[in-house]
Amino acid sequence: MPDSPADPVRASLGRQTFLTLLGARAATVAPGRVVIELPARADLCQQNGFLHAGAITSIADSACGYAALTLMPDGHDVLSVEFKVNLLAPARGDLFRAEATVVRPGRTLTVCQAEVVAVTEGGPDVPVALMQATMIAIVPRG
Amino acid sequence: MPDSPADPVRASLGRQTFLTLLGARAATVAPGRVVIELPARADLCQQNGFLHAGAITSIADSACGYAALTLMPDGHDVLSVEFKVNLLAPARGDLFRAEATVVRPGRTLTVCQAEVVAVTEGGPDVPVALMQATMIAIVPRG
Amino acid sequence: MPDSPADPVRASLGRQTFLTLLGARAATVAPGRVVIELPARADLCQQNGFLHAGAITSIADSACGYAALTLMPDGHDVLSVEFKVNLLAPARGDLFRAEATVVRPGRTLTVCQAEVVAVTEGGPDVPVALMQATMIAIVPRG
Amino acid sequence: MPDSPADPVRASLGRQTFLTLLGARAATVAPGRVVIELPARADLCQQNGFLHAGAITSIADSACGYAALTLMPDGHDVLSVEFKVNLLAPARGDLFRAEATVVRPGRTLTVCQAEVVAVTEGGPDVPVALMQATMIAIVPRG
Repeated sequence: MPDSPADPVRASLGRQTFLTLLGARAATVAPGRVVIELPARADLCQQNGFLHAGAITSIADSACGYAALTLMPDGHDVLSVEFKVNLLAPARGDLFRAEATVVRPGRTLTVCQAEVVAVTEGGPDVPVALMQATMIAIVPRG
Repeated sequence: MPDSPADPVRASLGRQTFLTLLGARAATVAPGRVVIELPARADLCQQNGFLHAGAITSIADSACGYAALTLMPDGHDVLSVEFKVNLLAPARGDLFRAEATVVRPGRTLTVCQAEVVAVTEGGPDVPVALMQATMIAIVPRG
Repeated sequence: MPDSPADPVRASLGRQTFLTLLGARAATVAPGRVVIELPARADLCQQNGFLHAGAITSIADSACGYAALTLMPDGHDVLSVEFKVNLLAPARGDLFRAEATVVRPGRTLTVCQAEVVAVTEGGPDVPVALMQATMIAIVPRG
Repeated sequence: MPDSPADPVRASLGRQTFLTLLGARAATVAPGRVVIELPARADLCQQNGFLHAGAITSIADSACGYAALTLMPDGHDVLSVEFKVNLLAPARGDLFRAEATVVRPGRTLTVCQAEVVAVTEGGPDVPVALMQATMIAIVPRG
């Protein structure tokens, strides 16, 4: 199924050594929407034992970038221009899920939003962060 | 020298397991100014081999938080409210240095800025990211 | 109906001389949700004849602030801590509508989002801006 | 002196009807740096009599846009992609001054910062806002 938007996204994700170090994985790759999940781990924390804001940002930023990439022509790559994160609650849970959606696709710039929720077995999902981001399409040369 | 602003900062930094995982360390801790350094490593990259924006954000956010903490009364803790990052150039280099300064200290909220530069042996420092952040003081209970 | 969240909001809005200058008005005031409308006018434009980003921001920021205020105890006031705006399309239309919703209410800080759409008679609403904002509750003294 | 960066900036500023409505004017136009001033006026306020955040943003955004434009080739125009504003103190004073500088110029995207200070006769300047913004170059057609 070479036409699935999931393929270039999963290939690119596999080259992101930092996401591998974190233990993050793509749960959903659909046109304009990507979900990345990160299981909690003791070595991903800030000083109070919550997930570090940098780890939260890592999965939200990657989910936004790949959500943008799903709507770009084949062979394009994507880079983050900028993002803004509001931290909504202490990030404690068994797993963290970043769900990114494209707000406005564009030929050059794409605007995305991502929500990160903390998932705890037997409890409700708790929103822990909200990202608003701008991604830029990199057109392959030659 | 128990009154040095460096002490609570370094103690708190030592409890940030995520910074340990990344290999980040505090290079400077002074009132209103904190520098955190991160040596380049193959497992901290995005799909093109540059330092992942999440790793850049991790050291910038921690530097901002600790810069804010240096100006707070003893016994306080600090949490990130929000931050905004502009990525200025591909993050390639031997080492990445996040330098945070307090722009406006406050009893509850403190506004900080951080610049992250890529350091390469024999070359000039290259700015790779700029953060503008809000930190909140957490007053100890009891 | 002195208990309506609309009352303190409309009273406060009436004291915002800048919104009067712009010609903005509250279209909806409900718990956690405020809509402010701004009719297009020739003296609100940037160099290409589109609504100036500052005018867009003015109604989005006010809508966010009042959306936050609707969920605060009586007698509180609200100030903007920070906001981030992505401009999605040139702002041309007959009227601009900023719809703000509270994402996470808090005793001190409240996080809001606002979307601004351009409304043109006979055409579809066009999203022109997206705001993510932090508001702070000001507790009355004495 | 048709080569001065000030000329296209002042020409464009003159077409910004919203800045005329506010009473804002360019105080300095130099390569990579633009200062816009706004005298205080009773009809530019929020509910407590401080300058409205939307008016603050208007001059900061325009200063950033024009600072970016000074470094672009002749005939280009500039649009705001996004900006982030931290409000540092209540905006009271006789005059408000937004000083924008280019942080990273680019062929497509330019990153700028602006500080807005409140100026009061006989008193020190007080920083009231800090903006971090992305501008995009619009290349003329044909």
